[in-house]
Amino acid sequence: MKLEAVISEVLQKIVPTEDERAFVRELMGELEEIAREKAEELGIDVKPYFVGSLAKDTYLAGDHDVDLFLAFPLDTPLEEVREKGLELGKEIGKTLGEYEIAYAEHPYVRAKYRGVKVDLVPCYDVRDWKDVRTAVDRSILHTKWVNENINGKNNEVRLLKRFLKGIAAYGSEIYVRGFSGYLSEILVIKYGSFAEVLEKADFILRQKVIDPAGWLKREPEIAMKTVKREVEEDKPLVVIDPVDPRRNVAANLSWEKYGRFYFKADEFLRRPSLEFFFPTGKTGGDYLAELRRKGTHLITLLFDVPEMVDDLLFPQLERSARGFEKALSREGFGVFGWNAGRYGAEKAFIMLEIDRIDRPRVKIHPGPEFFTERGRDFYRKNERVWLVGKRLYAEKRVKENIIDVIRELLEKNQVALGKNLRETIRAAEMLVDYVPRSLENEAYLFLSREKDGLKQ
Amino acid sequence: MKLEAVISEVLQKIVPTEDERAFVRELMGELEEIAREKAEELGIDVKPYFVGSLAKDTYLAGDHDVDLFLAFPLDTPLEEVREKGLELGKEIGKTLGEYEIAYAEHPYVRAKYRGVKVDLVPCYDVRDWKDVRTAVDRSILHTKWVNENINGKNNEVRLLKRFLKGIAAYGSEIYVRGFSGYLSEILVIKYGSFAEVLEKADFILRQKVIDPAGWLKREPEIAMKTVKREVEEDKPLVVIDPVDPRRNVAANLSWEKYGRFYFKADEFLRRPSLEFFFPTGKTGGDYLAELRRKGTHLITLLFDVPEMVDDLLFPQLERSARGFEKALSREGFGVFGWNAGRYGAEKAFIMLEIDRIDRPRVKIHPGPEFFTERGRDFYRKNERVWLVGKRLYAEKRVKENIIDVIRELLEKNQVALGKNLRETIRAAEMLVDYVPRSLENEAYLFLSREKDGLKQ
Repeated sequence: MKLEAVISEVLQKIVPTEDERAFVRELMGELEEIAREKAEELGIDVKPYFVGSLAKDTYLAGDHDVDLFLAFPLDTPLEEVREKGLELGKEIGKTLGEYEIAYAEHPYVRAKYRGVKVDLVPCYDVRDWKDVRTAVDRSILHTKWVNENINGKNNEVRLLKRFLKGIAAYGSEIYVRGFSGYLSEILVIKYGSFAEVLEKADFILRQKVIDPAGWLKREPEIAMKTVKREVEEDKPLVVIDPVDPRRNVAANLSWEKYGRFYFKADEFLRRPSLEFFFPTGKTGGDYLAELRRKGTHLITLLFDVPEMVDDLLFPQLERSARGFEKALSREGFGVFGWNAGRYGAEKAFIMLEIDRIDRPRVKIHPGPEFFTERGRDFYRKNERVWLVGKRLYAEKRVKENIIDVIRELLEKNQVALGKNLRETIRAAEMLVDYVPRSLENEAYLFLSREKDGLKQ
Repeated sequence: MKLEAVISEVLQKIVPTEDERAFVRELMGELEEIAREKAEELGIDVKPYFVGSLAKDTYLAGDHDVDLFLAFPLDTPLEEVREKGLELGKEIGKTLGEYEIAYAEHPYVRAKYRGVKVDLVPCYDVRDWKDVRTAVDRSILHTKWVNENINGKNNEVRLLKRFLKGIAAYGSEIYVRGFSGYLSEILVIKYGSFAEVLEKADFILRQKVIDPAGWLKREPEIAMKTVKREVEEDKPLVVIDPVDPRRNVAANLSWEKYGRFYFKADEFLRRPSLEFFFPTGKTGGDYLAELRRKGTHLITLLFDVPEMVDDLLFPQLERSARGFEKALSREGFGVFGWNAGRYGAEKAFIMLEIDRIDRPRVKIHPGPEFFTERGRDFYRKNERVWLVGKRLYAEKRVKENIIDVIRELLEKNQVALGKNLRETIRAAEMLVDYVPRSLENEAYLFLSREKDGLKQ
């Protein structure tokens, strides 16, 4: 299939129809009116702004999440922004129908209106980066900058976003660490088209620094500090935020996700296909067959999780899984990989792929140098003792089975765990080479590396 | 048992009787006469010297090996010393009865006379260290120095030597790396008695440098160079040779053997017993029971060895065993230890204690950084590929069973082996959790750590 043919077919699927656009326009009009009304009623001085992909006209067909920002004058105290912002959000939420309180840097209201998710986020009405006081304040500036610079390339952004979703490299959430929508927009604006961005996957990485707004000339000192900091932290890209020279738009982009983009861009340009944008659902092979093929074993921990948003839960799951990886390696087990996620509404799982279920009943325990006080102690306290060079070693009786080893590690507090998960992981159910029906596919994707692999 | 009582009982066993002394004197007289006669017959200008423990009267009862050195004038060319020395040795050997040629730095004759082993070693008739030209030349000086300084402490030396043999720390051979006879003599001369040497086990190590002949004053530059060199090489002790300031008498003493001495000296002084001098033969437990107790496995390689003296064979066996240890660790097997030795007259064995027989059928194969030429190659060439940070990884099919793994490692030349053993080890017979009858005890001593352990 030719590149042009693929692109035109994708565009048919992702560009909103006129009907859809009309619906969105209507929706935004109604929301803005309700917000103004409620603000007036409560006597709160705010300006409503639409931000995000809807406001920038870079949303994908069918994807209508609304971000409605409630911007307070700059001289409003922060406490008042929080309180009045939440109060107003709740009032609007009530009018719209159902709503709940969500938590980011500050609490905000998440409502539902005409089948669409609407976030009502209090912020400051900033004019430029010097005014920025909370993490969300920049969004208004981002929206403005994109609208001023996109120059009709909206569908090119849509293509890039869909491509990144298709190859599982989209999303700047801490547990994804992929390309954000704003980063996709900047790349298209900078390089002119979807195809150009893909062709420059290698060039962009080598160039390293992207400065679409010319901050390195306008504010060299601040911009250079940003570049230096991000390069020192070994980020794959430094994209100086067009609206704030202190910020790297790609700060959360991981090497792994850039790597996916790097290889998939090349593959797509060589052999264009719809598959990149809309991968056919993984068929879900047999995880037990995978275990047999590899000769490895799967340990699955199931445990309750406290009520937490994914942004908080996932990093803690990751930390815990890495904790097990480290602790078990220390105990002589080979850990081939880990996987973690939610399991139903109130539970989570951690999977560990391990080289074996049992280890020897003894371990070689390294001690101190022999001619020290600690050396003499070690010699006295241990039964079978020998020397390698100056260092004493002893044989130590250990638990043989991995489940016993994990229990002991948890009892002795020798696994680094996410702080809200410590208690619940200690009470985890542990399964060996077996998972509940609803995790079978997850186990297969993990073991086969279809989940994190670049190619199979 | 009191220290004095133990010592007096040991002395009864190790001090030669008057009869034995008379026999030794007679033997030496006869040997000297034969040597002089033969030298005269062949017209070779040499002086016979007795060196070693017989000449120093520090030999243990029943242990009569004779070292008869044939000393050539200093102006003899080295080639002549080799040739004439060997010729004379052979003539003497013929007169004594059976003999063979042995090889050290130079070939020499090893004969048997009246049931006693007699080494006939050509050397130079050196007056002091500046004359020393071959490795054996110092022996005459050592004998002279000990005899001038021992001051009647001969039996104290016998006690120390017997103690060191009992705790398996005696012998300066490259494959033992323990205390030499000469080092034992120096320690007794320096510290006055057997018990004093034991009491100073910790002090001696801390003091580090022993200089019985005062070289640091007489030849400060040369002696300091020796000290510096040996300290840099992290030797446990630096004993400046009383007859040669360039040499550390303890150069071949290992930390392991000093450690044995260190702990056993302390234990003996706390609870003196004959057991230290004459350990009751290891009873030889059941090696299969040891394997079951530990949950480990034993791989034994049996192979032919070319005709080689122990001094050459053992370092090569050690190098090969360490080679296997390293290569198998790289392949993901845990190696608990190794053991090697002769097996019958023409074979040798290497034993490896391993944590398991089988490993998974796949291995995680780390690749290069993704954005390089090599990265793109790696991506193309491998099937399952993923990223951790910038680095590519791939799954690699590997041999599962350790015997197959060893065969493959040997085929691919990935085990560092002793140079004369390469071919023969490649053709080795390999046994898993089983050894021939005559190695059962060896296997037990190895697995139970009775062989190299400090305590059981």
